[in-house]
Amino acid sequence: MGIVVQKYGGSSVADATGIKRVAQRIVNTRRAGNDVVVVVSAMGDTTDDLRDLAEQVTPLPPPRELDMLLTAGERISMALVAMAIAQLGHKAQSFTGSQAGVITDSAHGKAKIIDITPGRIEAAIKDGAIAIVAGFQGVSQDTKDVTTLGRGASDTTAVALAAALGADVCEIYSDVDGVFTADPRIVPAARKLEKVSTEEMLEMAASGAKILHLRCVEYARRYDMPIHVRSSFSQKEGTWVIPDSKAGEHEMEQAIIAGVAHDRSEAKITVVGVPDKVGEAARIFEALAVTEVNIDMVVQNVSAAATGLTDISFTLPRADGQSAMGALARIQDEVGYDKLLYDDQVGKVSLIGAGMRSHPGITARFFAALASAGVNIEMISTSEIRISVIVDEAQVDEAVRAVHTAFDLDSTEVEAVVYGGTGR
Amino acid sequence: MGIVVQKYGGSSVADATGIKRVAQRIVNTRRAGNDVVVVVSAMGDTTDDLRDLAEQVTPLPPPRELDMLLTAGERISMALVAMAIAQLGHKAQSFTGSQAGVITDSAHGKAKIIDITPGRIEAAIKDGAIAIVAGFQGVSQDTKDVTTLGRGASDTTAVALAAALGADVCEIYSDVDGVFTADPRIVPAARKLEKVSTEEMLEMAASGAKILHLRCVEYARRYDMPIHVRSSFSQKEGTWVIPDSKAGEHEMEQAIIAGVAHDRSEAKITVVGVPDKVGEAARIFEALAVTEVNIDMVVQNVSAAATGLTDISFTLPRADGQSAMGALARIQDEVGYDKLLYDDQVGKVSLIGAGMRSHPGITARFFAALASAGVNIEMISTSEIRISVIVDEAQVDEAVRAVHTAFDLDSTEVEAVVYGGTGR
Repeated sequence: MGIVVQKYGGSSVADATGIKRVAQRIVNTRRAGNDVVVVVSAMGDTTDDLRDLAEQVTPLPPPRELDMLLTAGERISMALVAMAIAQLGHKAQSFTGSQAGVITDSAHGKAKIIDITPGRIEAAIKDGAIAIVAGFQGVSQDTKDVTTLGRGASDTTAVALAAALGADVCEIYSDVDGVFTADPRIVPAARKLEKVSTEEMLEMAASGAKILHLRCVEYARRYDMPIHVRSSFSQKEGTWVIPDSKAGEHEMEQAIIAGVAHDRSEAKITVVGVPDKVGEAARIFEALAVTEVNIDMVVQNVSAAATGLTDISFTLPRADGQSAMGALARIQDEVGYDKLLYDDQVGKVSLIGAGMRSHPGITARFFAALASAGVNIEMISTSEIRISVIVDEAQVDEAVRAVHTAFDLDSTEVEAVVYGGTGR
Repeated sequence: MGIVVQKYGGSSVADATGIKRVAQRIVNTRRAGNDVVVVVSAMGDTTDDLRDLAEQVTPLPPPRELDMLLTAGERISMALVAMAIAQLGHKAQSFTGSQAGVITDSAHGKAKIIDITPGRIEAAIKDGAIAIVAGFQGVSQDTKDVTTLGRGASDTTAVALAAALGADVCEIYSDVDGVFTADPRIVPAARKLEKVSTEEMLEMAASGAKILHLRCVEYARRYDMPIHVRSSFSQKEGTWVIPDSKAGEHEMEQAIIAGVAHDRSEAKITVVGVPDKVGEAARIFEALAVTEVNIDMVVQNVSAAATGLTDISFTLPRADGQSAMGALARIQDEVGYDKLLYDDQVGKVSLIGAGMRSHPGITARFFAALASAGVNIEMISTSEIRISVIVDEAQVDEAVRAVHTAFDLDSTEVEAVVYGGTGR
């Protein structure tokens, strides 16, 4: 009898009806002969409602207390799911992150899992119970305080727990049928992928595909844990995210291209007129690192020989825009650059596929597709299995559609798709 | 520097405004030179809302899971109070019952405190922080599961914690100005008591005065902890509840009568025609004990010599009425009684005063007052410092007013009083 870890997002447990539906699915999995461990997010908009409440009290809640507050959300949903399972005649016990042994560092609001010691979960399973675990939260190793792992981190809890328990699979349920070749809201002809490699999923998550959280996929890769992404609103098979080590078992026949991802959450900053000397770029990025700004793409123009000056552009989360501009302004005299340009009307479009490695010409076809759609490219960045470009935000949809078509990803039959947020 | 424990009920922290007001009061107490530990209830109707949510999922929630669910309420309020204090420039840390060392038995929904090990609270105080503790909850010694102590038990948490910390006083805040000689909604001329003995408060709580929970007063008596009952909506002094051992310090000049309490939550059951033999009453009350019914007053009539039969009447919480009637019906053949009468249109009126011990004639004056108000007495029970009668529910208000006046408790000046629930 294997262990199945299932994670249900906020939209799947948004109300009593959803909770009962989820409970039925859990019980069915149990009756099929599996030990079941369930990770739940907070109901619907609970987390946002709690954040609003905090904001009414203070604009700057202490992170320790904010974590204490927000973790009430999963406490509510997990207890209700356990009740609904009991109502169906099965034993169920809910556990907080702390009780489940999710040990983290003490970085409140964005804690990292250090270790999982799931003794109580294993005891509950042994006792014949279904264990319900609060996602998104843990307990700090040093201070024994309650921590949260950051937005979307319930997926991470689920995969980490699955790895610690030696589960066969980690099922991630949301209101979406699986991983698609592109966002179906933009490309109605997008196809659901049956299988995708962990490596590709990692690039897709990093490129803005919201279906799985980046950290969760990193965990899955590190611990060789297969993820099955599926909808709690249907019985359909979803998308299997398969680690390389298990590609054989899952008969992976690698497509050349996995899909097209896009991201509208970034902004672009250009530092104009930087003296083209050793160490100038380092000084700029050190200043940004100190303010904990996450840099994504970086491009440095070839310097104009006449002036000895160059421009450095980079992208970053829009939320970090203000602090980055502040940090750069403070070093203007030191670096001696000319001026700063800030643009948050940009979007990133990425093509992901492990087949790129062995198929030359992908890049050319990608740029040709964008060109014929009249999309201007502002920045380019590539990895072994990904090409990303920054374009005008208004042209993102067009760019995604053009690339999707150019790589023959369009489905002939349009699937019925429910698309939306995935909870956390 | 002494330690002050303050407890704020649900109505005091019902919204962001209330939370900020409470935070200001806490900070003022800290600035006056005290170490402050705060116990909070859940915001407003949160606990009831969570119960409703559980009911939508299942009519019979497992007690362990219901406790897990309900404890989310204090988690939210305590984190918000800590945030509001931080906003005022003071260090504050919130702690769950478990973190605060509130160790209980494992009777979910009505757990009893076994021990308090407030190491983390003491460390927080030593660190200069104000500690905010979740009321109403603890952790079971055996199973390490989250427990709740039952309705109104945040008061108990506060007094128990005050005792464990060696606090100078436990302040219980609600939306009521203090303990009154009677419910001001019934007797507008009721006076606020400046001081009352723990012993009297115990009888008042047991007789239906809702201002303090019975268990909390028992704790205060056992640990000699003075309680200051006051309103979080005003700066007025409230009522001091003084243990006998500290009566000297507080210059207690004992009034003869402390007040008149009433209770509309009980029902009366009469077992008619019980054979007047040894052991029959025992059999009846054993059957009730098995179903965990709490019996309050018991009266057995003198048996009629002619029949050899007697009637046994007792009162009990209305909520237990149905299970008590069931238990009695099951032993009818065995006991051989005639029939059962059930009456939930009754009320209890009690006069409480430590002075009764040394002042004869109190009982006569009490009955005379009821008689001249035309109130018929159905049952009588007395303790050393209390007389209680069961009367028709419709006559409760009249009875309370008549007794209040007869014992010269009416105030000449009517105080402005806000009266209502006290949260829990």
